[in-house]
Amino acid sequence: MTQANATIRQDAVNIGTYVRELGLSARAAARTMARAGTQEKNQALRATADLIIARRTFLKDENTRDLEVGAAKGLGGALLDRLELTDARIDAMAEGLRHIESLPDLIGEITSMKFRPSGIQVGQMRVPLGVVGIIYESRPNVTADAAGLCIKSGNAAILRGGSEAIRSNLAIAGCIARGLEESGLPESSVQVASITDRAVVGGLLTSAEHIDVIIPRGGKGLIERVSKESMIPVIKHLDGVCHVFIDEQADPGKAISIAYNAKTQRYGTCNTLETLLIAELIAPEVLPRLCGMYRQAGVELRGCAATRALCQGVGTARESDWSTEYLGPLLSIRIVTGLDEAMDHIENYGSHHTDAIVTENFSSARRFLREVDSSSVMVNVSTRLADGFEYGLGAEIGISTDKLHARGPVGLEGLTTQKYIVTGEGQIRT
Amino acid sequence: MTQANATIRQDAVNIGTYVRELGLSARAAARTMARAGTQEKNQALRATADLIIARRTFLKDENTRDLEVGAAKGLGGALLDRLELTDARIDAMAEGLRHIESLPDLIGEITSMKFRPSGIQVGQMRVPLGVVGIIYESRPNVTADAAGLCIKSGNAAILRGGSEAIRSNLAIAGCIARGLEESGLPESSVQVASITDRAVVGGLLTSAEHIDVIIPRGGKGLIERVSKESMIPVIKHLDGVCHVFIDEQADPGKAISIAYNAKTQRYGTCNTLETLLIAELIAPEVLPRLCGMYRQAGVELRGCAATRALCQGVGTARESDWSTEYLGPLLSIRIVTGLDEAMDHIENYGSHHTDAIVTENFSSARRFLREVDSSSVMVNVSTRLADGFEYGLGAEIGISTDKLHARGPVGLEGLTTQKYIVTGEGQIRT
Repeated sequence: MTQANATIRQDAVNIGTYVRELGLSARAAARTMARAGTQEKNQALRATADLIIARRTFLKDENTRDLEVGAAKGLGGALLDRLELTDARIDAMAEGLRHIESLPDLIGEITSMKFRPSGIQVGQMRVPLGVVGIIYESRPNVTADAAGLCIKSGNAAILRGGSEAIRSNLAIAGCIARGLEESGLPESSVQVASITDRAVVGGLLTSAEHIDVIIPRGGKGLIERVSKESMIPVIKHLDGVCHVFIDEQADPGKAISIAYNAKTQRYGTCNTLETLLIAELIAPEVLPRLCGMYRQAGVELRGCAATRALCQGVGTARESDWSTEYLGPLLSIRIVTGLDEAMDHIENYGSHHTDAIVTENFSSARRFLREVDSSSVMVNVSTRLADGFEYGLGAEIGISTDKLHARGPVGLEGLTTQKYIVTGEGQIRT
Repeated sequence: MTQANATIRQDAVNIGTYVRELGLSARAAARTMARAGTQEKNQALRATADLIIARRTFLKDENTRDLEVGAAKGLGGALLDRLELTDARIDAMAEGLRHIESLPDLIGEITSMKFRPSGIQVGQMRVPLGVVGIIYESRPNVTADAAGLCIKSGNAAILRGGSEAIRSNLAIAGCIARGLEESGLPESSVQVASITDRAVVGGLLTSAEHIDVIIPRGGKGLIERVSKESMIPVIKHLDGVCHVFIDEQADPGKAISIAYNAKTQRYGTCNTLETLLIAELIAPEVLPRLCGMYRQAGVELRGCAATRALCQGVGTARESDWSTEYLGPLLSIRIVTGLDEAMDHIENYGSHHTDAIVTENFSSARRFLREVDSSSVMVNVSTRLADGFEYGLGAEIGISTDKLHARGPVGLEGLTTQKYIVTGEGQIRT
């Protein structure tokens, strides 16, 4: 069994030349991938999944070397944990690829062919974006996930993972290359950068001729750098300063359950609640109990004056708290007069990611849905449900906080575009 | 009748402060516009159209001053012609606004609300992009057209036209402001920059906080500058190196009619034919006659060796001809072996704008539609029909050669996005 690609390049290669070669190979492969049939793409996904399981020991060995190098370099425990390829994570990678195999192929779908007065018929065909560049951090499973989504959507991909995961990523890349080859698809449809030099990232971000879209996956620092430097359109995911607003006509049971779940089910995710807004009329009934639950869960609370007057053990929220994504066991709380003040707060301090109202009042729900300008707007649902799988997208390459192209959870469709197709019988313009 | 806004600001204002004020006002107005009802928006369009007609004399006086200043500055005849507001052009502006009034309002439309296994219901709602920045050149009618499309799609707009049209643009802006005001919508929903300093453009392109998308309309130089400098997503329109491929199984009559129309119906447009490809088996039958027609129309022809051997009066096409957008009475011609070579040529030299095949062979048509990666791909239709009105979009803010967000002719939908909406009855994540 070959372990193709599985070597870190350490020769004194010119970075510009290297990135250009990646780009040219990807562009050539993209043309073949765009024409590939569903069967070939599915076979490549299946073969890669099989190889990941078959090469389990090799993957773990390579991963162990990454972990050793990382530990020697003094990487923290959390980072090493994210880097580790456990048996469960290897199984999950293979499972993920088989799941992508099971999703419908969107490519080539023709929609709404309509006759026009001139006699031409006009519609749209769904096609791949072309070459997708993905820049990500230490979790090696992103290599398999991202490659799988790009293969299924008929794109070529250039993947640039973190240097600390280079051996793990290249070992996974070897499985993908072999899986593509076995299915008659170009190996270079998925290329993992084998040079860890940071200049490769800069090179990719300026390869507008060869790359159609850049998707960064990782922490805020990475995403900000990519957004700033990229000459290529970026599908990006910035802050998630998410709100739950408990309306005065909320069902108290639902309100408590949703507000508690949205904050405590997981702290570090982008759809986690960061600021709780509550109408003054319902606050005395709901807030003291909710604050007690939060405190018991170890959540530090920071509130407005009215909140502090009503509940014990709540610190003072400063202006900056309202726009902070804590990503941890902290919550800011503000009592508002009602719906309008809540929506003003969300507009002024929120990040347009995910915001929910809890209410039984139909008109309040309707106004909230219409007027709140966020990628996900919810009624009587925990913000933690803002997720590609929960939404039925089948898979998720990320969540977009952009407004153009893809907004909110991005699945396979976000990796495609539509071209116009026009048929006729000799129509000309007069 | 007030002529609001209709003054060029010449006070020593700080450009940064000025652009920031435009941005803040637009952002505030955008929130109101997003909630505006169809009736208010339509009333604003109607009122503006009426005012443009009522203020005809004023518009023409202001335009005359622009023309005088332009002539004194030595502007060329073509530029002055584009700048002129004739009675017909004033009528067309009003007509255009009434047409936009007649189009359906897309805002608020909810699609595909689906129940998920968790019990939540997930769908998407169409919403405005927010603030649209439009940077354009000398035609003052763009002011009315762009404003109309932005109003109908619930966006706020910042318009920056050419300095040579400043008085005309501000006079039109006065009509729009009054039309908005009469309809109860914020006047600052449409702002025309009243400072002609070029630094205003630079300022707008870096106002990522206040502007959601930039649409440049004008020549190549403008679009390249905007694409390069913008920190904001750009819906842009680059080259149109468009092809017609006459397949060996083409109907000769359709082939000649389409290839002639695609080149000669209008020379300066982006969907005009620039390179004719023709299969070697049909070339002897079709090409000499077609070349004769082109020559009679005054089109200079540049061909490959085989073309020159077959037809008289054809110059030599150089490598650079294949990738040149002539925008004039010039055409390059190449004889190819068949479909594959034609598609390779289009991939290598084309600009992915609009490409057509002429054929009666079903499988060739099917392959061309699937495999050619252009914003419009056509069978037996003149490339000149690639147009928002011909496609039934109702109106066109431009043609996008980008792949993300909007590809091909961009109508009202291209000025909108979709947010997820999620409803439930207390669902949380477990």
